[in-house]
Amino acid sequence: MTDMQTSSTPPAVHPLDEALVLESGAPGHYTGQTTQAYWNMVGPYGGLTAATALAAVLRHPDVLGEPVALTVNFAAAVIEGPFTVVATPARTNRSTQHWTVSVLQSPAEGGDPQVTTTATVLMAERRETWSGADTPMPQVPPPAECALAPAIFPVQWLQRYEMRPVRGMLPGEWDGSERDSLTQLWMRDAPARALDFPALAALADVFFPRIWRRRALRVPAGTVSMTVYFHAGSELLARTGSGHLLGQARAQEFRNGFFDQTAQLWNEAGALLATTHQIVYYKE
Amino acid sequence: MTDMQTSSTPPAVHPLDEALVLESGAPGHYTGQTTQAYWNMVGPYGGLTAATALAAVLRHPDVLGEPVALTVNFAAAVIEGPFTVVATPARTNRSTQHWTVSVLQSPAEGGDPQVTTTATVLMAERRETWSGADTPMPQVPPPAECALAPAIFPVQWLQRYEMRPVRGMLPGEWDGSERDSLTQLWMRDAPARALDFPALAALADVFFPRIWRRRALRVPAGTVSMTVYFHAGSELLARTGSGHLLGQARAQEFRNGFFDQTAQLWNEAGALLATTHQIVYYKE
Repeated sequence: MTDMQTSSTPPAVHPLDEALVLESGAPGHYTGQTTQAYWNMVGPYGGLTAATALAAVLRHPDVLGEPVALTVNFAAAVIEGPFTVVATPARTNRSTQHWTVSVLQSPAEGGDPQVTTTATVLMAERRETWSGADTPMPQVPPPAECALAPAIFPVQWLQRYEMRPVRGMLPGEWDGSERDSLTQLWMRDAPARALDFPALAALADVFFPRIWRRRALRVPAGTVSMTVYFHAGSELLARTGSGHLLGQARAQEFRNGFFDQTAQLWNEAGALLATTHQIVYYKE
Repeated sequence: MTDMQTSSTPPAVHPLDEALVLESGAPGHYTGQTTQAYWNMVGPYGGLTAATALAAVLRHPDVLGEPVALTVNFAAAVIEGPFTVVATPARTNRSTQHWTVSVLQSPAEGGDPQVTTTATVLMAERRETWSGADTPMPQVPPPAECALAPAIFPVQWLQRYEMRPVRGMLPGEWDGSERDSLTQLWMRDAPARALDFPALAALADVFFPRIWRRRALRVPAGTVSMTVYFHAGSELLARTGSGHLLGQARAQEFRNGFFDQTAQLWNEAGALLATTHQIVYYKE
């Protein structure tokens, strides 16, 4: 947009929606384009790749119901440029549907497209049933009382999220002193955006590597596989709107090059929207 | 075996090894056969299906390293009879390898094979690094002090596991009284068997549906997707041998037809061998 913008100008497209633009090709084939807005150190933010895999399923004409589970495997770095998403309904039942998804990209040096990402998605037509929460939101100060954190690194994707730490952020000094791996923070898209399933999937990957906190050492680390279970349906997402989510993440085990992370995302009203897990490579 | 058995008779094949027999066909194609030994109510025990998907990858001539992550999606019931497992290396890197797996079966009424199960597997050549535990094993009495539980249902697969409840087993009465969803039990294969990766994957699905305990109601329920993160390498599995594992499982949220389960499996020495999650369908 230019300085000529007036109040009648339609609102700019949100960077997340811009990043999730997929052009339809052959059935189940979509072409996307990496965007600088979510760039991480050597590729797009992993949460965006997760959102992209899910978005391809959601835009497929044969899709049934709403997302219940998403597993994304980050098989190789995505490089700058176009990529293809292939979404295939592997099995459709009466009220559930199982999808397999691949992201493919031609290597920088040219040649046949190779798989950079694999994913599976479970969709379901959900019905209202007895429901119960077994993981109450921790008692924390509201977002307005938690100061905005500056981005911890000069990478683009960190500008796409408003983060208001509650506890357990990065250690003040990289001195190798061990501590717990628990982080809690309020977070939402920046600029604010009404929550939908791809945005929620992307938010599930917001936490910095647990090992950085646990060891107070910035060792190389990267998520290799990530699973999101969606407890929220679209109605609860609509009620959540563009409000803040409380994210809580901790590791369970660090061993020989891989650690796991288990995390929860509640809305401000205390409803658990998603639980998520990942396994993360680390060095040293 | 017959009554003629003598001490020189080679030991019988363990039912798990019998269930995991896969005949090699075209590259990456394996044919298996369901077995009554692990039969559940309307199909094989889900943990066995998870073990089968993993076993196919482990027997592939191109496999690299050891399992780090396994996600299995139970797309449709497997019926009695033969099935085909297709294991494909989607991406091989220097020290990691990503696999996609499908189980296919022809419907009882005949016709083309259909997908009953999808899975992804992450393999890696692990190196010794700094390691740390963030989820110590709960303090519980040793297996010998915990009484063997009789099978809670007359299904075959429950005979394949020795279970010694510590706390949180099924409610004494199905009276709809709500309680927590936490279960802890000592468990191992029956008969005892040296632990390997497929056996560990199968053990990760041992817990009865959390909702049965949470609500003291035996509503219909079944796992739809399950993820296992392997923290143990083969050396730690060898050290664990045929000893008992402590399993701990709880739900985080029950909502509109699906609940999640998060679980940990330690060996008797307190090493965390695997963490696992699943999303489970329930009715009512």
